[in-house]
Parts: sequence; C-alpha cells; structure tokens
Amino acid sequence: MNILKSHKSFGGQVQFWDHVSHETKTPMRLASFRPEGPLRGCLIWLSGLTCTEENFIAKAGAQRYLAEAGLMVVCPDTSPRGLSLPGEHEAWDFGAGAGFYVDATTPAYRDHYRMYSYVTKELYSLIEKEFGLQGRISIFGHSMGGHGALVMGLKESHKFRSVSAFAPIANPMGCPWGQKAFRGYLGDDLSSWRAYDTCALLEDGWKHPHPILVDQGTADTFLRDQQLRTDHLQMACEKAGQRLELRFQDGYDHSYYGIASFIEEHIAFHAEALA
Amino acid sequence: MNILKSHKSFGGQVQFWDHVSHETKTPMRLASFRPEGPLRGCLIWLSGLTCTEENFIAKAGAQRYLAEAGLMVVCPDTSPRGLSLPGEHEAWDFGAGAGFYVDATTPAYRDHYRMYSYVTKELYSLIEKEFGLQGRISIFGHSMGGHGALVMGLKESHKFRSVSAFAPIANPMGCPWGQKAFRGYLGDDLSSWRAYDTCALLEDGWKHPHPILVDQGTADTFLRDQQLRTDHLQMACEKAGQRLELRFQDGYDHSYYGIASFIEEHIAFHAEALA
Repeated sequence: MNILKSHKSFGGQVQFWDHVSHETKTPMRLASFRPEGPLRGCLIWLSGLTCTEENFIAKAGAQRYLAEAGLMVVCPDTSPRGLSLPGEHEAWDFGAGAGFYVDATTPAYRDHYRMYSYVTKELYSLIEKEFGLQGRISIFGHSMGGHGALVMGLKESHKFRSVSAFAPIANPMGCPWGQKAFRGYLGDDLSSWRAYDTCALLEDGWKHPHPILVDQGTADTFLRDQQLRTDHLQMACEKAGQRLELRFQDGYDHSYYGIASFIEEHIAFHAEALA
Repeated sequence: MNILKSHKSFGGQVQFWDHVSHETKTPMRLASFRPEGPLRGCLIWLSGLTCTEENFIAKAGAQRYLAEAGLMVVCPDTSPRGLSLPGEHEAWDFGAGAGFYVDATTPAYRDHYRMYSYVTKELYSLIEKEFGLQGRISIFGHSMGGHGALVMGLKESHKFRSVSAFAPIANPMGCPWGQKAFRGYLGDDLSSWRAYDTCALLEDGWKHPHPILVDQGTADTFLRDQQLRTDHLQMACEKAGQRLELRFQDGYDHSYYGIASFIEEHIAFHAEALA
C-alpha cells in the first residue's frame, strides 16, 4: 500500500492509495477516510458505473458522520485500470469503470476482471490486517456498486455485518446493463449468472441475518428505464423471508446529491450493526 | 435564466442554470441550492482557480447546513467561457477559469472579463429579483474566490451583510498569482491594482461593519509558497481596525476536504448576520 495523497478532513485523514493486486494482476487504487481516535469498524463502499475510487470520498459528505461514529470507509476503484483488453474501452457501461464486481470467466477478461475476489478476499484481508478490524466490516454501494454490495453481503454474510445500498441494480440478469456485462464477463451460460444476481441468490437460498437497507429515489430515470428493478428486489426478499427496509425517496434522482441527503442514516445503520 | 439540471437534495433543489450576461457578453453558468420553505437569505460563493460553478455544490457538503438555516447559495463560474482571447487558454492561473473577480481594462480582456461587475451588480440584482431577497445577501469564497469575496465585501459593504473566506489570496499585488493576473487584466499601472487588493483596500480606508471570518489551513502549500499572505491580511486588518476572526486550522490543506470540515461554521456565521 502506497499513500499517494492525504488530506485532513473532520479531524481525520482522507487518503488515496495504490497497491499491486494479486487478484487483478494490476495496480489498484483506493480512497479511504479514517477518523481520529479508536475505530469501531470499517465500511467498504462500492461505486457505480464510470466512477473511480474518488467519487464517494469527494461528493457523499460522509466524513462528518463517519467521524462521529468512529467508522472508517474504504472505496476501491470500479475495475482494473491500465489494460487494453478487447472491448474494454469502447463503452461506459462495460470494461474499464464497469467491472460489475464479478470474477470474469471469459477468455478476454478472466485474468484481470476479478473484482468479486478482489473486494471480498484481498481488500477485506488488507483492511483487517492494516487497521486491526477483524470481522468489524460492513458493505454498501450505489447502483452497480449497490448490486455488488447486495451480492457480496448475501454470499459472504459471515464477513459483512450489515449491507445497504442506494439505487442498486438489483436484478442484473433482467436488465440491459446487467445482461451486457454478464455476457461479456461470464459468457452465454445463464446459470453462471445467478451467482451474481441479487434476486437469483435470494431465490437460491442466500440470506443475510441483518435487515438490508435500500434507498431508491422515485425520480431516478434508471428506475423508470427498468435498469434497477427495485420491484423484483422487493418480491424476492418477501419470498425468501429476507428482511428489507426499502425506502422510496420522493423526488430524488440517481445522483450523489441524493446519496448525500441520506448518507447519515446509512452510516447510523451500519454503526449500530458494528457496535 | 434557463434551468439546465435539477437534483433534489436535503429536501431542496440543486440547480444548474445559464443566462446571457450583459456584463461579460457571454453565456454565464451558475449552480444554486435552494432549501424548501421560506428563505432567510442568500450566500454568493466564489470559487478558486480552475473551478467552475460545480465544485462547491458537489464537494463542500453545505446543503444540509443551508437547509437547516433556510439559506440558499448561488455559485457563479470563475470566468466567462467560450471565448478565444489572446492568452486566455494557455495557463491554469490566467484567463478561462481564472477571472480573479476584476473588471479588466486591458484591450484583450476589457470587453468580457468583467467578473467584479458581473457578481456585484448583475448577479446580485438577479438574485434579488428572482428570489425576492432584497438586501439579504452575503458573500464568501475560497482562494481566488476568497480574494473576490473580501474585495467585494469591503467595497460593497452596503450590499453584503457578511463576508468570510477560506484560504483567500489576501494580497494579490504581493504574490505571483495576483501579479500575473493583474498585469494581464489591468495592465502595468500598479495604482489601478489597489482597487482589487484586500490589503490595499484596508489601507485605503475600506472596511466592513461586521467581523470577517477567515479559515486558513496550516498545511496549505500555497500558504507556504506565499501566494495567500494571511500574515499581510492580519496586519492590514489590525492597522485598519477591521475586525477579523482569523482561525489557523492545524494540519488542513487547500482542498475541499478542508472546506467541508468547516463549512457548517461559515454558514452559521452568515446565518446570524442575515437573521
């Protein structure tokens, strides 16, 4: 871990890092905020399409609440960088900036696009080791990152104490973004897609013992375009008996201006689970 | 005024606008946040070098505090855009993104670079008219924008109820950034520069009836490089009898991570003056 930049913020430190990942076989960049004083735990934030490690730290306004709660946050980048794989740089919703938090199996992507293992194993261990936070880790994210947080939270419920999401892509197998990404990273065998689809995982018996918190703005154009499928998430949780606190936020859209409005409540939700 | 984008945030609306300015004879872009409910007043935020109308709205985390105080904020861009004046696009610290809040007099710039009149007359009137806020307007800013806020606050103290700044360029006549900009916009006659230098204005008798609040991080590299001259500001205020609340913030740098840490207190400061 090399520190690239540090900025004091709310008494703590915002830092930008990089390290060479053995999962992605590339350098990976991270942002973090660590409040001063003893740590209660760490949140991993997963960002959405086109984002980098910087968006959440710069725009969500989370530092104040993290400092008050004694929580740090670690934000990985949304894909490996610096590669030139076939098709990797042709669209904003696939390849660089759009890793979709899966372990790819297609020949073009399987050597590097391993964001699922990168986050749940490599980054997780690194946080435990670097900050002495054994087991006191929760996960949340936005849009593509909300999808990642829900999938990782369900499949690794022993690792993540609590899970929340803003406007998650809750049923990627059933929406254009997810279908494009899964075809490119996982190939044409739809049965392999189920391991990375929140609704399918719930159908297949995966659950998280803690209620899941989801905020969804009603003015989110991607909700209207059926990219998010909050309705499917709600049905799948009901059927599976997964406790879900789903809040439709009237008039809010898909932007960080909405995330910032409710970030305090998500941090309080995780702080309680990590207490 | 054309609304380009709206995002609900903390119950209110973040909006991006443009309008054709009669001062700059170009379209000018603005960002604003208007909380729901009755307005107590409006703050004008002036941004620093390389910024646009977006930086403060996206990064300062001010919306929560503005909503609580019943204050709106309006953030103009840092220069006219869309022109091709001689030298306008050759450096990050002069020309586009670096208007320095002066009314230029040099032949190349005088027709368009009129940011002083744009803010104090055109934008000011527009806010009064558009939002019904007669006289209930204050001003603040960062770095180059801190310079703009101090200069406008001193010279137009009847218009701005209160003035604050983060890391202002407090003595542009005495620093490399300011000398370069003033030579380019105002020419070689140093006496004309005094109208836009906070320390010179204080020497020349300009004062604001309300104390001025200034936050300056001690780890700010531009402070070390003598671009800001907080020391000169302090001396000039003392000599002139201008009340100044100057706070050195230990370990904070020039970034928005520092601004966000203290924005609540600046908003409270202006809210009190506008009560």
